[in-house]
Amino acid sequence: MKNTLSVKVEDESGTLTRIAGLFARRGFNIESLAVGPAEEIGISRITMVINGDKQTIEQLIKQLYKLVSVLEINNLTNVPSVERELVLIKIQALPQNRTDILNLAEIFRAKIVDVAFNSLILEISGDPGKIAAFEKSLSKYGTLEIAKTGKIALSRESKISSEFIKNTY
Amino acid sequence: MKNTLSVKVEDESGTLTRIAGLFARRGFNIESLAVGPAEEIGISRITMVINGDKQTIEQLIKQLYKLVSVLEINNLTNVPSVERELVLIKIQALPQNRTDILNLAEIFRAKIVDVAFNSLILEISGDPGKIAAFEKSLSKYGTLEIAKTGKIALSRESKISSEFIKNTY
Repeated sequence: MKNTLSVKVEDESGTLTRIAGLFARRGFNIESLAVGPAEEIGISRITMVINGDKQTIEQLIKQLYKLVSVLEINNLTNVPSVERELVLIKIQALPQNRTDILNLAEIFRAKIVDVAFNSLILEISGDPGKIAAFEKSLSKYGTLEIAKTGKIALSRESKISSEFIKNTY
Repeated sequence: MKNTLSVKVEDESGTLTRIAGLFARRGFNIESLAVGPAEEIGISRITMVINGDKQTIEQLIKQLYKLVSVLEINNLTNVPSVERELVLIKIQALPQNRTDILNLAEIFRAKIVDVAFNSLILEISGDPGKIAAFEKSLSKYGTLEIAKTGKIALSRESKISSEFIKNTY
């Protein structure tokens, strides 16, 4: 099961090492990781996706809280939340495929951010499902390079998530 | 000086720890970090932004290459490249400010992804300069939470970057 944790930490050079060390010692594999400044100065927010059952994640949260620089942890796994990731994809775009690729970009609302003779760079943001579908649709043209951010997430104050609505029907 | 490195690594649980450990021992502070799957299965691409002069970064690249799981490093600092980051911002949106916030969102082409009684969540992607300007414009309404991905970057096959064009005029 994939779990999403949003962790607020003090922005120091050793913080990420201590966290990564904890994961390695316990054999967790972080599926994705996004680190950036949070709303307060000197504080970063790390959004991490980790595979594990409920008990394992509870243990992990306890261990994380023992690290000095960890200030707050929110488990967003079962909370209505907005989840987004961002991808840049460099794709082979031969003249005969270019129109198809541009059409796909429009359908998925991706942006073309670089145009070269035989390749394009596309930018797309969305929930992980949409991104996966877009990557798959493009792959047949020849994916040259992919740079992907980790997933970021914020809890919805509206308390309403389309994922949860789907599950109740 | 800010440097952008794009590092391809084998996707193992210890990789990030070894990299973070190297940075901590040498006292580098990673300004931002984005980790996600690359174009090949089992391979991740880490995009990192690090402060340091040219010599320091060259040393760092040498040290990184000594780590077993590091496959390839591209220094994108002085290469025409597309640079993007993604941010989710939860902002206080009192009835009297709501229209102003929606106008700002339209100007910056941000998306509204959650609407609650007294707050909104906005999603915006772009180069770090645009993101910083957007965050600043919104801050007066009361920023409640920010989740930001690290910067990702791909070299432009077109070899043309507006940043470089600006610098030559």
